[in-house]
Amino acid sequence: MPEELIEVIKRIRPLDSVAMEAAQARLDSLTKPPGSLGKLETVAKQAAGITGEAMPDLSRKAVVVMAGDHGVCEEGVSAFPPEVTPQMVLNFLNGGAAVNVLARQAGADVVCVDVGVNAKLEHPKLVSRKIRYGTANIAREAAMSRAEATAAVRVGYEIVSEMVAKGTRVFATGEMGIGNTTPSAAILIALGGLSPEQAVGRGTGIDDARLRHKRGVIERALQANEVDQDDALDVLAKLGGLEIAGLVGVILGAAAHRALVVIDGFISSAAALVASRMAPLSVSYMIASHMSLEQGHHGMLEAIGLSPMIHMDMRLGEGTGAVLSFHFLDAASNIMREMATFESAGVTQG
Amino acid sequence: MPEELIEVIKRIRPLDSVAMEAAQARLDSLTKPPGSLGKLETVAKQAAGITGEAMPDLSRKAVVVMAGDHGVCEEGVSAFPPEVTPQMVLNFLNGGAAVNVLARQAGADVVCVDVGVNAKLEHPKLVSRKIRYGTANIAREAAMSRAEATAAVRVGYEIVSEMVAKGTRVFATGEMGIGNTTPSAAILIALGGLSPEQAVGRGTGIDDARLRHKRGVIERALQANEVDQDDALDVLAKLGGLEIAGLVGVILGAAAHRALVVIDGFISSAAALVASRMAPLSVSYMIASHMSLEQGHHGMLEAIGLSPMIHMDMRLGEGTGAVLSFHFLDAASNIMREMATFESAGVTQG
Repeated sequence: MPEELIEVIKRIRPLDSVAMEAAQARLDSLTKPPGSLGKLETVAKQAAGITGEAMPDLSRKAVVVMAGDHGVCEEGVSAFPPEVTPQMVLNFLNGGAAVNVLARQAGADVVCVDVGVNAKLEHPKLVSRKIRYGTANIAREAAMSRAEATAAVRVGYEIVSEMVAKGTRVFATGEMGIGNTTPSAAILIALGGLSPEQAVGRGTGIDDARLRHKRGVIERALQANEVDQDDALDVLAKLGGLEIAGLVGVILGAAAHRALVVIDGFISSAAALVASRMAPLSVSYMIASHMSLEQGHHGMLEAIGLSPMIHMDMRLGEGTGAVLSFHFLDAASNIMREMATFESAGVTQG
Repeated sequence: MPEELIEVIKRIRPLDSVAMEAAQARLDSLTKPPGSLGKLETVAKQAAGITGEAMPDLSRKAVVVMAGDHGVCEEGVSAFPPEVTPQMVLNFLNGGAAVNVLARQAGADVVCVDVGVNAKLEHPKLVSRKIRYGTANIAREAAMSRAEATAAVRVGYEIVSEMVAKGTRVFATGEMGIGNTTPSAAILIALGGLSPEQAVGRGTGIDDARLRHKRGVIERALQANEVDQDDALDVLAKLGGLEIAGLVGVILGAAAHRALVVIDGFISSAAALVASRMAPLSVSYMIASHMSLEQGHHGMLEAIGLSPMIHMDMRLGEGTGAVLSFHFLDAASNIMREMATFESAGVTQG
């Protein structure tokens, strides 16, 4: 592991148990049966452990949308052509994509980062941190070098560091990259031990024949790239992609800075799986948002040890499920601050 | 079936297929793979079918919290004493309960109705429509008469009618009534055909011994009350409770007035099950919010034919899960109104 990543990982500490106990005591004083608000209570307690405050202010939220392209698209693994990646990046920057709509509703910022789009992109709102113009075709060779993967992780870490300094305390992972369920499934097979039949799904919506072809491509990628399963950075570099690496940096950065990080769907979870293997303590800073319809997502979340809150059969990515769950973080926060206690309301305890 | 309920049920019509097709066409023009927003798209389409408008205004929302007491509490079926029902009603009216906090966040009104609390209750905000001071003990006799059940259903219907006239277009079902998982489980067994082992759960949090006792009480209730499974009103009247009957009226009223009705947890779903048997068309006006931790809830929703959006292990009732899902209705509405189309954003279709 490069020294600069070791430094980041070293900064990730266990949750603050004193703050968590204070949060639990508060939760148990409120007018409801103990534990009856389920994951709202779990999230409230986790937020306390992450921030070190029993009732942290979670109002400053943002989704970081990492964008990158995939050389493996030349194998015909996606229902959409690769030019859609830069087109959708411009859609994000102009506020017209699903994640923009949902982020506006949730009062969250959208930060769009070009970490590896295979096109020249310019826009006043774009965060331009391109490492290279898309990955290589993993069916033939490594997606990127170990140095490039490290640099892409570093991009995510630095962006989060800057945003934390400006007050953001809750992050969501988002991504755009036509073809990116393919590297995600490959990572799941390599790190999670799932079979291609379990791990590989339909992405944006391919048919049965294309799905069989996609599985074959991923099997070739795993043969072409002899990954070291005990070296998550090796898996990340060889199987890709650049936006996944960027999100690994976002997740590790959030954990290093004691911020919450809400994990979106299949591709974001691939980044979370890599982060969990690089830094097991990072998992306690993660909140799983939704269960994607993408078939490998269930096994992916299990491999990380996360349980999602939302079951909406979504499969869009971009961070949409994560941003949707921001309302639940607000709910957890409001419950802690606004609910009456048994004592204040004069309600008999069970 | 009494004539006044037949009149209500007759008003429930199928969804508007023209508006649904218009909504689907809009959804398919937006910059995302078709169907990739899952249940957000289903809800958007359903809202169109319910209201007859492709993009209805869903901003006026309310949760109707029906409160009633249960004679069966004298059998010791709950972890909380019955005096908690009126105490919690006052908590709702003073804005301190979980449902108040979550409704404020969602911009929804809370309407609290005394349809059968076993105490004299007065409060400027209370809707006083008491039918009787709690039900009889169903382990020995019918919870209420058929006329009382009809009157309680009528209360819900009338409240919804008034609110629709004032502009509310989205309802959530909420309830308060110590002991009310007992009649709900009895209804599930009678109408859904589940066994007591499948249907009866821990409610607010009883231990193993009390759970066995509760199952025995429910078996006695089913023996003492020879219900006609083909007559949902008979099941409702004999097994109770008054707040469940009030919610049946809320659900039928919403459907009759072409408003959306979001179903909360186990007790609300018992009302939805009764409504679905009285008026099968009412199901298409229902939106399932969350999967409760109460063990019979999964089977209950299956018996109605609903699939919930939120999996938070909640088991509080009050309407909390339903109100939490209001954010998703707003999301569906915002997606329809604010997202760019493939054409407007210049994005290539797959």
